[in-house]
Order: sequence, then C-alpha cells, then structure tokens
Amino acid sequence: MTRQVVVLNGPNLNLLGQREPDIYGRTTLADIEAACRSRATKLSLDLHSFRQTNHEGQLIDWIHETRERGAGVAINAGAWAATSIAIADALRVLKAPVIEVHISNIHRREALRHNSYVSQVAHGVIAGFGYRSYLYALDALADLLDP
Amino acid sequence: MTRQVVVLNGPNLNLLGQREPDIYGRTTLADIEAACRSRATKLSLDLHSFRQTNHEGQLIDWIHETRERGAGVAINAGAWAATSIAIADALRVLKAPVIEVHISNIHRREALRHNSYVSQVAHGVIAGFGYRSYLYALDALADLLDP
Amino acid sequence: MTRQVVVLNGPNLNLLGQREPDIYGRTTLADIEAACRSRATKLSLDLHSFRQTNHEGQLIDWIHETRERGAGVAINAGAWAATSIAIADALRVLKAPVIEVHISNIHRREALRHNSYVSQVAHGVIAGFGYRSYLYALDALADLLDP
Amino acid sequence: MTRQVVVLNGPNLNLLGQREPDIYGRTTLADIEAACRSRATKLSLDLHSFRQTNHEGQLIDWIHETRERGAGVAINAGAWAATSIAIADALRVLKAPVIEVHISNIHRREALRHNSYVSQVAHGVIAGFGYRSYLYALDALADLLDP
Amino acid sequence: MTRQVVVLNGPNLNLLGQREPDIYGRTTLADIEAACRSRATKLSLDLHSFRQTNHEGQLIDWIHETRERGAGVAINAGAWAATSIAIADALRVLKAPVIEVHISNIHRREALRHNSYVSQVAHGVIAGFGYRSYLYALDALADLLDP
Amino acid sequence: MTRQVVVLNGPNLNLLGQREPDIYGRTTLADIEAACRSRATKLSLDLHSFRQTNHEGQLIDWIHETRERGAGVAINAGAWAATSIAIADALRVLKAPVIEVHISNIHRREALRHNSYVSQVAHGVIAGFGYRSYLYALDALADLLDP
Amino acid sequence: MTRQVVVLNGPNLNLLGQREPDIYGRTTLADIEAACRSRATKLSLDLHSFRQTNHEGQLIDWIHETRERGAGVAINAGAWAATSIAIADALRVLKAPVIEVHISNIHRREALRHNSYVSQVAHGVIAGFGYRSYLYALDALADLLDP
Amino acid sequence: MTRQVVVLNGPNLNLLGQREPDIYGRTTLADIEAACRSRATKLSLDLHSFRQTNHEGQLIDWIHETRERGAGVAINAGAWAATSIAIADALRVLKAPVIEVHISNIHRREALRHNSYVSQVAHGVIAGFGYRSYLYALDALADLLDP
Amino acid sequence: MTRQVVVLNGPNLNLLGQREPDIYGRTTLADIEAACRSRATKLSLDLHSFRQTNHEGQLIDWIHETRERGAGVAINAGAWAATSIAIADALRVLKAPVIEVHISNIHRREALRHNSYVSQVAHGVIAGFGYRSYLYALDALADLLDP
Amino acid sequence: MTRQVVVLNGPNLNLLGQREPDIYGRTTLADIEAACRSRATKLSLDLHSFRQTNHEGQLIDWIHETRERGAGVAINAGAWAATSIAIADALRVLKAPVIEVHISNIHRREALRHNSYVSQVAHGVIAGFGYRSYLYALDALADLLDP
Amino acid sequence: MTRQVVVLNGPNLNLLGQREPDIYGRTTLADIEAACRSRATKLSLDLHSFRQTNHEGQLIDWIHETRERGAGVAINAGAWAATSIAIADALRVLKAPVIEVHISNIHRREALRHNSYVSQVAHGVIAGFGYRSYLYALDALADLLDP
Amino acid sequence: MTRQVVVLNGPNLNLLGQREPDIYGRTTLADIEAACRSRATKLSLDLHSFRQTNHEGQLIDWIHETRERGAGVAINAGAWAATSIAIADALRVLKAPVIEVHISNIHRREALRHNSYVSQVAHGVIAGFGYRSYLYALDALADLLDP
Repeated sequence: MTRQVVVLNGPNLNLLGQREPDIYGRTTLADIEAACRSRATKLSLDLHSFRQTNHEGQLIDWIHETRERGAGVAINAGAWAATSIAIADALRVLKAPVIEVHISNIHRREALRHNSYVSQVAHGVIAGFGYRSYLYALDALADLLDP
Repeated sequence: MTRQVVVLNGPNLNLLGQREPDIYGRTTLADIEAACRSRATKLSLDLHSFRQTNHEGQLIDWIHETRERGAGVAINAGAWAATSIAIADALRVLKAPVIEVHISNIHRREALRHNSYVSQVAHGVIAGFGYRSYLYALDALADLLDP
Repeated sequence: MTRQVVVLNGPNLNLLGQREPDIYGRTTLADIEAACRSRATKLSLDLHSFRQTNHEGQLIDWIHETRERGAGVAINAGAWAATSIAIADALRVLKAPVIEVHISNIHRREALRHNSYVSQVAHGVIAGFGYRSYLYALDALADLLDP
Repeated sequence: MTRQVVVLNGPNLNLLGQREPDIYGRTTLADIEAACRSRATKLSLDLHSFRQTNHEGQLIDWIHETRERGAGVAINAGAWAATSIAIADALRVLKAPVIEVHISNIHRREALRHNSYVSQVAHGVIAGFGYRSYLYALDALADLLDP
Repeated sequence: MTRQVVVLNGPNLNLLGQREPDIYGRTTLADIEAACRSRATKLSLDLHSFRQTNHEGQLIDWIHETRERGAGVAINAGAWAATSIAIADALRVLKAPVIEVHISNIHRREALRHNSYVSQVAHGVIAGFGYRSYLYALDALADLLDP
Repeated sequence: MTRQVVVLNGPNLNLLGQREPDIYGRTTLADIEAACRSRATKLSLDLHSFRQTNHEGQLIDWIHETRERGAGVAINAGAWAATSIAIADALRVLKAPVIEVHISNIHRREALRHNSYVSQVAHGVIAGFGYRSYLYALDALADLLDP
Repeated sequence: MTRQVVVLNGPNLNLLGQREPDIYGRTTLADIEAACRSRATKLSLDLHSFRQTNHEGQLIDWIHETRERGAGVAINAGAWAATSIAIADALRVLKAPVIEVHISNIHRREALRHNSYVSQVAHGVIAGFGYRSYLYALDALADLLDP
Repeated sequence: MTRQVVVLNGPNLNLLGQREPDIYGRTTLADIEAACRSRATKLSLDLHSFRQTNHEGQLIDWIHETRERGAGVAINAGAWAATSIAIADALRVLKAPVIEVHISNIHRREALRHNSYVSQVAHGVIAGFGYRSYLYALDALADLLDP
Repeated sequence: MTRQVVVLNGPNLNLLGQREPDIYGRTTLADIEAACRSRATKLSLDLHSFRQTNHEGQLIDWIHETRERGAGVAINAGAWAATSIAIADALRVLKAPVIEVHISNIHRREALRHNSYVSQVAHGVIAGFGYRSYLYALDALADLLDP
Repeated sequence: MTRQVVVLNGPNLNLLGQREPDIYGRTTLADIEAACRSRATKLSLDLHSFRQTNHEGQLIDWIHETRERGAGVAINAGAWAATSIAIADALRVLKAPVIEVHISNIHRREALRHNSYVSQVAHGVIAGFGYRSYLYALDALADLLDP
Repeated sequence: MTRQVVVLNGPNLNLLGQREPDIYGRTTLADIEAACRSRATKLSLDLHSFRQTNHEGQLIDWIHETRERGAGVAINAGAWAATSIAIADALRVLKAPVIEVHISNIHRREALRHNSYVSQVAHGVIAGFGYRSYLYALDALADLLDP
Repeated sequence: MTRQVVVLNGPNLNLLGQREPDIYGRTTLADIEAACRSRATKLSLDLHSFRQTNHEGQLIDWIHETRERGAGVAINAGAWAATSIAIADALRVLKAPVIEVHISNIHRREALRHNSYVSQVAHGVIAGFGYRSYLYALDALADLLDP
C-alpha cells in the first residue's frame, strides 16, 4: 500500500496567522506546511502536496485527483465543513483514510459550526489543537497506512 | 421555437460508474452522454452541450449562457440541489423549460438530500431511474418544446 | 417476467379537468386513461387496469391485488402521498417496480405537499409534466420490465 | 343561485350524545339534524341532506356530489380536519361556500386538534357552540347564498 | 342573569373599510356598530358598549370593567389575538361567555396569525364572515345568556 | 361483566407471512387467529371476532359495534396507529379495556412509526413479540375482565 | 447608596384575590401592598411606590423613572414577562438590582409561561410563594442594597 | 405628491445616550432629532414630527394619523419590531413609503432581535449606522418622494 | 486613513435588469456601476473596483485582496448571503467597514432568504431600495471613513 | 440455553405502593417480587434476582453481570428510560432477550416520558398493566427462552 | 407539623468558592452550611442535615429518607436540575414543601440550563442571589411550615 | 508545571473488546491501558491513573481529585458525553488541559450521539481512531504540558 498523503485546506485558511489570532493562533499556513513536511519525513510518509483554495470546485477536483492516486487525506475544510455536501460526497468515494482536521475546537464556537458534513464521512476527527491538529492527523495517517 | 437543449451536471458526477455503484450504477458519464446524444437525435432535439463541473460558478455561468440561447435544460445538480440557492436563482430566470434529473431516488436516501432548491424552480422532476432519468428528461423536453 | 402494469389514482383525481385547472390542466382522467392505453400498446405493455378511488382502503386492496399478479405500478396517490403510511406500506411489499407520478410539481406548491411517503418506497418519481407524467412512467415501466 | 345546502359529518359523530358528554354534550346527531331541518325551513334553505360517515372516501364522494349540485356546505370533519388533506382538496374545488363547524372549541383541546386542513379552505369557521354551531353555520349559509 | 353584552375591538380595526379591503371588506366599524345595535335590539340584548382601541391596556381595563358587570363579550382582538397573553388572561377571568370574532378567516392567511391566545380562553370562535361574524356572535351570546 | 373480546387488525396485516418476513415473521393472520382462538378458550374468554380491514371507516364501525357490546379490544392498527386520530377517538369512547398490539417493536424502526395515537388512548401496550403479542394481549384482557 | 425600592406590577394583577384563586390565592393587591410596606419598614427600606398597571407603556415609564432615582426594583410583570422584550430592555438599563417576582411557580403551569424575558435581565428570580414572593424580594433587595 | 415625513420611535429610545452606550452610542434622541431636522431642510423634506413613545397604542395612533396625511415614515420600532404584529399591521396600510431604521445591526445581536415584523411590511431597511441610520432613511424618503 | 472602497457583487447579479424585473427592477449592473462611480466622485471616495462574480472562490479572493488594501466594502452577496459561511468568515477579518446591500427587501421574500450570514459580520445593512441601496452604502462608507 | 432471568428496577420504584398511587397503584415492589417469583416457578424459569436501585451505575453493573450469565432481562428503568443512553448501551450488548416493562402506559403521560432509549434496544415492550406488566414480561421471556 | 428541614446539594457544589468564582462567588459550601445553620436557629427550624453529593443515586436516596421524616427540602440540584427526571420524580412524592435553589440566575446563562425538571415539581424557586438563595429558601420553609 | 496525566473512562467501556466489536474493535480496556502506559513512558508523562467507572458520581469525584493535582485529562465519557452536564461542569473547572477521546467517530453514528457536552468544555477532540485515539490524546497532552 502506498504511504502517500495530501493535506487539503479550505477557504480563508490562507489568512492563518493574520485572521482572528485569538481563535486561530499566529502560525501561518506556510509554517504549518513546514511542520507537516518535517513530520511526514519523520513518519516516512510521502507528503505529495499541501494545498489551500478558496474555490470549492478546486477542492473537489483535488479530492478526485487524490482518489486516483490512492493517497490518504488530512483535510481542514474550514467553513465548508458546515455547508458543502458536495465536498463530503467527493470524500466519501475515497478508499484511503480521510482525517478531518480543525485548528479550533468547533464545538466551543457558534452553533453554525457544530455540524460538519465532513465528519460524517471522515475516518476520524481531530480538532482544537492549533497547528498540531495537522501533525496528529499525519500521525494517524501513518498508523492507518502502516503496511 | 428552438428545439435546442443542454444537459448540465454538478459535482462528483464525473465519477459516475466508479463512485458508490450500489447507489449510482456502473454507467459512466460518457456512457450517459452517448445515450443522450442518441436519444436527442431520435427526438429531433439539438443537444447543444452535455457538460459537468465541480465548480458552482461554472454551472451558473453555463445556465446564464443557456438563457441567452433559449435552450431547454436537463440538470442534475447533484449535492448542490440541496445547498445552492444561487443555482436555483439562475434557473428561475430561464424562459425555456428546466427539468431536474436525479440518478437515484433522493427521497429514499439521507434526509439531507430530501430538500432540493432546484425542485422549487424546475418545471418537473425525474428521479430514481439511473441513467434513464436523463433520457426521460429529454423525452419531456421534446414534448415541451414541441412546436 | 410479465409485462403487466396497472395505473392507480387516489383522491379527487376523478375531478381532473374540472378541479383547479391552473394547477392540474384541463385534461380529464378519461383522457389520461386513453393516452395511457395508447402508450401501453406502443410499448407492448399489458395495461391491466387504470383505476381511481377516493377510498384509501380500496387503493390498498388494489395494490395487494397487483402484488399477486406481479404487475408494475404507476401510482398517483394525490394527497395521500403526504399522509398515508398505510399505502406506502402496501407498496413496499411489491416485487415489481412502483413509479410515483404527480401531475403538478409538488415541490413548487404548499409545504404540506412536499413530503411523500410514497416517494420513500417508490423505485422512481416523475412529477410536474401534467398528463405526460403518466406516459413517462409507462415508458419507465417498459424499460424496467424489459425481459 | 340555488339555496341548497348539505350538512356533512365525519368520523365518530354518530356517537354524539353518548361519546364524552363533557366535551360534546348530550345532544344526539339525530337531534342536531332535527334542529337543522327546522332552522333551514325558517331560513328558506333547501337542506338537501344531513349525513354522517366514518369512511373518508364516502365523505369525499359526497363532497364531489355536492359540487355538481352547487350546494353550500356545512361540514364537521371531526378528527379528519386535522389529518386529511384529501378532504380539504375536495372542498377546495367547491364553488359554493363551505363553512367549517366544530361542536367543541378545538383550540382549547389537545394540540393535535389545533391544526385544521379544512380551515385552510373553508369560507369561515364556527367552533365551540355545541349543536348550535350547526345552526349558526346554516344562518351564515343563508346569508352567503342570499340572492 | 343579565342579558348585557359588550363588543370589544383591538388594534387597527378603526381603519375598517379603508384598510386592505380585499381582506377586510368595505364596511366601516361604524357600520358594524350600527348593524350590531340593530341585531341586539332584535335579540333583546342590552348592547352596553361597542368599543375600539389601539391600546392594549385600555382593552384590558375594559375587559375588567365588563367582568364587574357580568356582561357577555364579543371580542375581535385583531393582531393581539396572536401576541397578547395578558388579554387572554383578562378574558379568562370572566364568568359570562366570551366569543372570539374575526372578520377574515385567519387560518387562510399568514402563519403568524394562526395561533390565537384568545381562542384558548374563548367559549367559541367565529371567523371569516366579514362584518357578519359580529352578528353571529351576538346570536350566540343571546343563546348562551338565554334565561 | 362480560368476558367478550374482539381482535381488530388494520391495513396490510392480511399480508402477514408474506410481507417483509424479516420484520413481521412468517406466521399468517390465519395462524394468529387460530392461536388466539385457542388461547381464548384456555382463558375462558369469548373471542367474538377476529377481523382485519384495509378500510379505516370499517375499523371505526367495528370499534363502535364493539362499544355497544361492551367487549374488550386487542387492536393492531398497523400504520394507522401513527396517522389516524379518528381511530383513537373511536377507541377513547370504549368502556371496556383496549390493548394496543404490535408484532414488531415500533420503537426500533423508522421514526415515523414511533408516535402512536392509539397508545395515547389504550389501557396498555404490547409490542415486539411477533404473533405472541396478541396472545399476551388476550392474557391481559382476561386479567382485566376478571369478574 | 440609597435604600429606596419600588414594587411594580403588570397586567391583571389588580384582580388578585378575585382572579383564579386556585392559582393566585385570595390575597388582594392591597393586602400585598400593606404587607410590603410593613416589611419595608422592618428592613429599613424606603418603599417609594407600589404600583400596578395594565398599560405596558406605563410600566416602561415607571421603570425609566426608577432608573433616575437609582431605586431597586421588585417586579411582577405578569404575562408580559413572557411577551415583552421592551420591558426587559427597560429593566436592563437599571443600575440598581432588579428582582423578578411571581406569585405562582410559572414552571408548573402552561408552557407559554415558561419563558420570561424579565428573567434574562433580572438579578434574581423568586416564584411560587404567593404574596410572600414579594416579601422575600424585599428581603433580597435589603441585602443587596446593604451599605 | 407631498414631501412630508415623520420619524417615529418606539420604546426605550428616550434613553438613548444613556442606555447601553456600547451598543447604542452616546448620541441622545434630541441630538438625533436635531440632525434629522437639519438633514430634512437640506433635502427639502417637510419633517412634520419627530416623536417617541413607550406606549404601543400611541405609536399605532400616530401611524394612523400619518396615513391620513400621506406622509412618508422612518420608524425605529425598537423591541416592538420583534413582537408587535399590530404595529406592522398599522404600517401595512400606509400608501407612502415606510423605512425601518435601527441604530444597531440587530443581526449581530441576540437571536430574539433577528425577526422583525416591521421588516416584513417596510419598503426598505437600514440598520447598524448609529444615529446616521436615521439620516440615510431621510435620504431614501427624499428619493422615494421625489416628484 | 484611506478612503478607498470596493463594491462586490455575488451570483446572478450580472443579470440585473433582465432577471425578474418585478423584484429587481430594470436597472442593469452597468447602470449601477455608473451611478456608484458618480456618487463616489461626489463623496471623494476612491472606488477602486466594482466587480461581480458567480464564483464563490473569486469573491473570497477579492475580499482578501481588499483586506490587504484596507478598503471599505459594499457587498451584495445575493443568494450566498443565505448560504456561505465562508464569505462571512472572509469578511469578518476585514478591519475597514463592511456594508451589506440588497436590492430587494429580503425580509418580504421567501423565508429561505431571511437569514444572512453576511448580516452577522457586517457593520450595517441596507436593503430594499433598488439600485439606490448601493448609493446609500457609499454614503455610509464615506461617513465611516471620514478622517 | 439457560432459562435464567433477572428483573431489574430503576429509580424510585422502591417507593411503589406509596408513590402517586393514582398512577402506579398500591402494590409494593415486594408484592411484585413475590408475584414474579411465583410466576417464574410456574413457568419453570430460574429467577436469579429481582433488584432495584436508585444508582444508574449500579444498574449498569447488574446488566453487565447479567450479560456474563446469559440471562434474560425484564427491566423497568423508570425515568432513566427517557434519559440514560448509558443504560441502553449496556442492554444493547446482551445476547439474551431484554423486555422493557412499565407499570403505567407512558404514552398517556407527560411528553417527557414518551421517548425511551430502552425501547430502542429492547426485544419487546409491555406497558400499562400495573404489576402485571412484570408477569407478562416473564411469560414472554419463558416463550423466548423456550429450548 | 414538624419544622424539620434538610438542605440537599447536587454535583460540583463541593467546589463552591473555587469553581468559576465569577458565576458562583467565593463562598464555600461550608460557609453556606454555617450561614444556613445560623439562619435555621433564628427561624426555629430543625436543620436536620446539609448534604452534598456527586452521585445522583445518593441524592435520590436522601430524598426518600427525607420523605419518611416529613421534612421540608431546600434543594440545589445543580446540573441535574436540567437532566434528571429521576430526581424530580423522587421530589414529586414528598408531602412537605420543596424549594428549588440556585446560586446563579440560570436564565441568564446558557440555554441548556434554562429547563429545570426540579422547577416543575417544586413549590417555589429562588435563583440568582448567591449563597443568600439558601437563606431565603429557609425563610420560605419557615413560613410554609408555620404551625 | 507537572506532567501528570490521568485517563478517565465512562460507562460500558469495561466491556471493550466484547461489546459490538464492529464499532469498537476487539482491543480490551486493559490492552488500551497497557498501550497508554507504554506511550506515556515514551512521552515522559506521569500517567497517574487509568480508570473506568459506570457511576457518574465516581467519574465526577475523580475529575475533582484530578483538579487538585493539576493533572491533564484524557477522557472518554462514552454515552455520558451526550447526556451529562454535570460531568462537563466538573471538567470546566480544571486548569490543566482536557482532551475528549472517542474510539468511534460519533458523527457517523446515531444522531443521539452527535451532541457532546464534553466537547463544549474540552481543549480538543480526537475521535474515530479506535484505541489509538487515546494515544494521540496522550501525545497532545505531552505537547500541551511541555515545560
């Protein structure tokens, strides 16, 4: 089995480090990518790509692409977790594991963020640990993809 | 009156034949296009285009384009049927008939798929007949566009 | 497999052509029966019966009867679609395909008509095409019963 | 315009006078018919029939029949007021006025009786006056049918 | 027992005849008062007063006053029927019968008018007969106050 | 006190043994009647009748008839338990005990079967024991009718 | 700090002692005022006024007046507790403590009385002790205004 | 067409400048009136009156009065926007334009303020600009009343 | 502080003037841009751009871009106001004021348009004034950006 | 297969005979135990234990213990039926049949008692027969455990 | 009549003085017990016990025990007020008065604390006065137990 | 800062490995404890205790105890996550981080498990990774307690 993984990020996550630092911290998305790349190396994972988009269609296309390669997915769908059934449908088709990641604990925030369509199709959920949520997701993918 | 029609497909339908075959069958979107082109010929309909996109904005642009040409529309908006008021608003403006198509019978599935904003603006709804839902929609368009 | 089909109609459909013509059109139920008989002949279907009743129990009895003969069903349950679990239970037992038919697009009408218990057990749904909804349902039965 | 009227009664009203006299009083349905006949005479109304049935289909048939004669209707649909869209649909088609009658004030009773589909199609509603609700309904019909 | 009655009217009813005549008709409140006075005379009722106010407190004070005199009440609380528990509480204390009156059939209008706190305390309800709703209410009071 | 009882069955129960055997088992209604007759004899109950109907009005008529004879009732109202207030109203009037019976445990099934209007008027409820639910209901009637 | 307090009463409380004595007891509002005046003296509170009104606007004006004097408030808003955001807004502005008082325990009564906008702005709530609810509120004000 | 306008203010707005300055700012109602009068002069509007009341009935009376004069209305109904159907009914009758004004953006506040019956009848809504909401409303009235 | 502003338009607004003129009027988006440019000049505002897109991702990108330049925003998010938390999240990050604009008064339309995620993050809301809603928004931005 | 059974009782059932005798009757829990022991003997069941506890944890422990012995269970979880998912989870694990017992018919009582998590995992439900509900549950266990 | 009372405290109240002092203040439970003992002496009440437990079963047992002694109860059930029907059932059986106490005003806090099953069975409710809520409850018990 | 941690387990988790292995896997709680102890050693965490209880009160007591020692907490509250506000209240008081752990992804299961009161107070949430959810929680605690 491949040990390839991708990290996918949804809307507004390009602003990390600038946007509402009380909630999301001061780490930028570039910082997170660096931390993920370093963690992936340590875990012998092939981190194929670390991407962000504000375009739902782009994210769906990437998920489909991932599907073809059979890679595991760590996904922070941001606000789309609460609104996009289309993204959840795309993820549902993946054979490799999908892990939902949230920087903040969405259950301590406004009610409109409590429902996540992604949670309903993900293998597991990790939320509330700041940038480390991504790292634990990589750990989990490493365990799940263990040959 | 023109007898031009377009068939529009929303997110994840490019995966047809591969995605959850229990629900959606093994027919691919290319198979459906072929079947539609053949049916259109038989019905003397001008099937201007058969398109799919994972980008909501693209679908809206196509609907607007269709509006200018006055073509009839068969649309399978997929998950967006349940979430996109913007698509329904675009369809509402069309003068030619709009037929909503679903491969599966959405009313036998999860509750989150039961509401369809597209149903609220479509002329009629055809759901649950696999790829043949498209063919019946073309039949209906042929009847509705009958000069 | 038999190619026998029945068409069943629920309450108030005997008034078709007279009742609220803005919504239901001017075609009478007799007109629809004639159109169905003609279509069935063309499709080599054996249209065993075309019936209407204002008595829920009568409709259930007819469904049971249909079940014994293994015939396919096109059913326009009218207002009972929204209220009768008993009819849906009767239909659920059928082995041959059941197609739900509506003259109007119930999703463009009052909210109380949006839920249909029949949709939850039907093979497929066709709504909004006036009397032609019946014809497409026969087409679909012909395809489904194709030996 | 005809001054013909009919009085229609739904399920369990044949038990009036015996059933839950705290709520419905001790007057029987025969007493009410007598009082209605006497009132109709005084009002120069032609009380074509005063009927009761426990069969929803029967009631719908009677409404259709009434529609053909153009008679005004006073209807106490009993529990069906809260559950039968089919009856409301039948009444909606009438051209002559329809008056909804209830012996008890349904708004003082269990919540399940507060919604009435009949109210949504009736010309007016009279509830809570015991057998006199029928008499006031006849008065109202006399006024509405006034040539 | 006294045969005194009062007719009480809530907000905006002073505009009757001018306000939304499609819904409320062209009869003015003065016309209704005249019709009521004439009907009361015919019924041997003592119509103590026929009043209207846009002030909820005034209406409550009048109800209390009525309570002291033991008069029957016909009340058209207008929009307050749907919002004022205080008025319903005031009415609940009356020993003589209270009849709720509505010019229009509130159940055919917007959902926000379907709930009536007054219905929950009234003896009976008469709605949808235009100005005649008041007359039938007087008839009912005459019957209820019959010595 | 009489020890007469009746067993009443609602819609689709005539199909028992054939319909969805995973849920309802393979016992037919005739088998159940035989078992009930045998149990009644053992319990010295007079099992006046064991009936089934797909017509709501018929069931109401039978309940009224039962009321006149003062017999106890074991009733499996099937889908009507969830939709018919009229049947519950008819049962409410009985003086002798009414026991609600269900073959399956309705609380383990779809949400639309969880509410039962019959439960709200029955003396007791027995559900989930297959055909034996009827036998326990007879046992209970025997105890309740014990002189 | 001043030790001035006012007691404010909303609609229908002028009927205390007469209105529904099962719920509200036989003590009149005058009795309560007397008891409050006596308690205030014992507590060295300056009971500036004890008022009742059926006019929401009057109550708001009194609250504003109280605000200027910096007095503590014991308020029984009656039915307005459940419906008037305007009164709650007026109370929210007060700097001195506000205590909500109810004669009956509103949580044991109809659901429509369970929500109280006043509770959402009051310092504390005392309900269910008959006229003594007022006395305990004065005790609480005395403690809260303790210099 | 007249260019007369009135500005109407509901409950607690007399406290502006003192009440919850974080939400409502430090401008008093007198300041707003002055600013409105100055703006009206600039816009050639006849600002007939600028009024505030804590009495719902008073506000309704003023609306009726305005109706007679055919004046345009800028109304800040305060908390009554969320609770008074009677005020909305009064406004619905006006022929001249009605503009709803809010000092704060009610959609950023507690859920109980999100619904506004006034919004459902107003020509337009302006909310969240502090005292300037009034000025923009006058601008809008000037444009709408432009001869 | 900069006096730069941008005007952003969401889905289907490119059809203005053609789409449902009863609701949206006959003014085109180009007309509105012209009117805005003229108003901006009068207000000494630097109208950096006036844009429309049917692609949610494009709109989010533009908002982020605006954020970098510190410009004020007038946004008509169309149907996305009701469905896109992602857009509201993007707006929440802006330091300069955001004004929500709607051509129609969304509160007088279908319930599905009443909720607006944009309202929950905007400084203020202006709705219902046709193309003038944009002009008042520019006025408000001019006032808010006043140095 | 073992024919061992246990009877488990939840909170407040130790007060049976004393607590609200109108609802629960005068039979004590000791009386019920005696009746159960006698019935078990007659049915050749080994009634291992008849227990009651007010401690949810204790009940869960007993259920686990039962699971090890493979005994059938008759359980009256009292108020926990409506609130404890933990107890239902414990029962779900049992291999032997579980029968839910209620002394009163919970569907005739307050709405808060209508939902039962225990019903969702039990084999069957018996409610409303007073202490005899236990006896019928034993009868059912005897039938289900029949070798 | 005995003048014995008990004070019962539910979960987490042992942490008073340490837990969230913004909401609950700095007084410890031992302080409150001391204040209660002193108040009881002054009121000639026999304060039999002042107890706290984190075990629901323990609290139910204590309530039963209290019932035997006929003592009045002041109970702060903490979070169980919102979740435990079992505790409310236990309290419902008491003959002596039960007073619900809350340190904070639960109606100003999160929605999940607004419903209290204890309120539905308590004689009265006192909430929001910090440790003094207990003292007023003792005052109320003294008044209620007054011989 | 201490690096002490505790792992707390709620109801039915003692059955792990036996209970519903499709959902929870075959690992026993003892296996998980061993894995946790080994992971803690590797992370230089002092795993003070690994406990399970079916008694809510016991769990609350343990949380309080933990609070005194300032230890971090990994908690799998099982079904209590969905029902116990008392446990969430106890956790809210902790100063050291709390991590919610679930073996299964609760968002893919029945709706009744989707709400978690524990999520609303936890620092972060890890769900769906089988026994490894615990290990990642220890990793997260190690990071959060990093000196």
